[in-house]
Amino acid sequence: MLPELLDLNTFRDALTSAPGPDQSARQGATDRNDQLTKPPGALGRLEELAIWYAGWRGEAQPQVQSPQVIVFAGNHGVTAQGVSAFPPEVTVQMVMNFEHGGAAINQLAQAAGAKMDVHALDLDRPTADFTKAPALSEQDLLAALRTGWNAVDTGADLLVVGEMGIGNTTPAAAIACALFGGAASDWTGRGTGVDDDGLVNKTRVVAEGVALHGQTDDGLEILRCLGGREIAAMAGAIAAARVLRIPVILDGFICSAAAACLSRMSATALDHTIAGHQSAESAHAALLGQLGKEPLLSLGLRLGEGSGGALAINILKSAVACHSGMATFAEAGVTDG
Amino acid sequence: MLPELLDLNTFRDALTSAPGPDQSARQGATDRNDQLTKPPGALGRLEELAIWYAGWRGEAQPQVQSPQVIVFAGNHGVTAQGVSAFPPEVTVQMVMNFEHGGAAINQLAQAAGAKMDVHALDLDRPTADFTKAPALSEQDLLAALRTGWNAVDTGADLLVVGEMGIGNTTPAAAIACALFGGAASDWTGRGTGVDDDGLVNKTRVVAEGVALHGQTDDGLEILRCLGGREIAAMAGAIAAARVLRIPVILDGFICSAAAACLSRMSATALDHTIAGHQSAESAHAALLGQLGKEPLLSLGLRLGEGSGGALAINILKSAVACHSGMATFAEAGVTDG
Repeated sequence: MLPELLDLNTFRDALTSAPGPDQSARQGATDRNDQLTKPPGALGRLEELAIWYAGWRGEAQPQVQSPQVIVFAGNHGVTAQGVSAFPPEVTVQMVMNFEHGGAAINQLAQAAGAKMDVHALDLDRPTADFTKAPALSEQDLLAALRTGWNAVDTGADLLVVGEMGIGNTTPAAAIACALFGGAASDWTGRGTGVDDDGLVNKTRVVAEGVALHGQTDDGLEILRCLGGREIAAMAGAIAAARVLRIPVILDGFICSAAAACLSRMSATALDHTIAGHQSAESAHAALLGQLGKEPLLSLGLRLGEGSGGALAINILKSAVACHSGMATFAEAGVTDG
Repeated sequence: MLPELLDLNTFRDALTSAPGPDQSARQGATDRNDQLTKPPGALGRLEELAIWYAGWRGEAQPQVQSPQVIVFAGNHGVTAQGVSAFPPEVTVQMVMNFEHGGAAINQLAQAAGAKMDVHALDLDRPTADFTKAPALSEQDLLAALRTGWNAVDTGADLLVVGEMGIGNTTPAAAIACALFGGAASDWTGRGTGVDDDGLVNKTRVVAEGVALHGQTDDGLEILRCLGGREIAAMAGAIAAARVLRIPVILDGFICSAAAACLSRMSATALDHTIAGHQSAESAHAALLGQLGKEPLLSLGLRLGEGSGGALAINILKSAVACHSGMATFAEAGVTDG
């Protein structure tokens, strides 16, 4: 079902030719929703979530049984420019923490009943500093996309992708700025907590990267020049899920930047995705606006790791459980207003 | 631990003298939060939720293991004034639906790992039409409070109370208007879906009720004159949870109106509660504002039954799981920024 990712053109073709949701299942779910024992629309967004999910899974009365959370980790040459409050060695330390079950995402995946996988991408080989050169070669981009592409469990029925990479709000801001325009300061936030001077410096770095590489309108080229391995891997996984019709809950700013590169490549590339949350990272709201996504949650998270996406899994599960498990007016003998 | 509810004064005394959270556990949780493997504040509201929960449970590293959802049902004489789009017999039909597992709240409680109980309060004996007389006698108020008071499982570690009662957004609006002032139209919404004419009529009914009974500043008397059995039972359960130090997630407009009566009786009566969601019922946002509560979710629900509260259980569970299950910087060998 998922073609082997031989080259970047295979990736482009697979993404642009992927089929949409099953309209018959979607209609079946819409009809069923109208008959459930509640006033019309009383479950609000839970109703549209269930119908959306039914369409992508091809079943009018689906279940969420096998969610997968994948965390990708990468290191960034641009940290040499002093863009992060944490040193780059924290990336590998946090990967160990993920593997030992000590991070927030471990707890959140478990609370959501999700399987969790971790992929560290060449942590000892950071990307190039994008103020000087493209972050990745074409070969390295392909390898990172392939890591994400192959990381998706074909049996999963819901996917969250997250990331760890000290400094990676900087490439995410540069990607957003290159894709959507505006000033570097519009897209640059405090990440894990840089101070005022740090923010000025980080904004300069983003502006330099965009000036050097932002002349293209190709999502994949922007991802290569300004992104990072974990960001490309997230894009690869989201694209694979699109081909496999596995619904995706997007996480925060960095995940949304990865998704935005796909969106530039194909207008329907993100139809299988919803926004799990709006992060406290200042530009995330604007980025979601560009993607046309309304977040499910807005709880001030700014951790990454897939945390906001994983937190939203139980909302989707609850929506689908109501849809598929509730009685109809006829079944329950309840008078329909 | 929970005194027997002999009379209304026992209720008042128990509510006003109930102890607050355990400050030592709260401080322990605050200290622990500072050491977890994440940038300071990166889990946003999840951090404050976990600390709040720890204080009320008296443990710096707590677990959420036994949530309880209780749905109370009652009928309202004021439906004779044509305030609802559904006929009153739907209340008993929906109670059957709850008991057979066919309603939204059954699915949502199950998805949250919560035990669910249903209490139908004298459905064949609706309250008096409050445009003509007090909704409840003192004896009936006490009985309804007692039903809620005794319905709380003393072993529960989290409580959601919900309701079913055709017409009950009308008493909830009247309670809110009597407590907080303003025009009847400020507090009156479409409930399960009355049309424009219905809304005008409903607003008139609310105004008449408040004009007749709204001269008191006593929360319990407002609850008696303008409330209903299921609303009083919710207030009884929330008060019992306060005495038992069981944290409560408030549901929508009607639940918030019940809680607001307690808040008028004691400034700290709702310290053990959080707002699970902001409902689509138009006045709910203003009511939460009066209570000083920021909702966790805002997904357009307007069902009642405890649905929004139950949906928020997994958010709280996730917050507590992160707090209690994550590694500290020292444990994980991660460099603290």
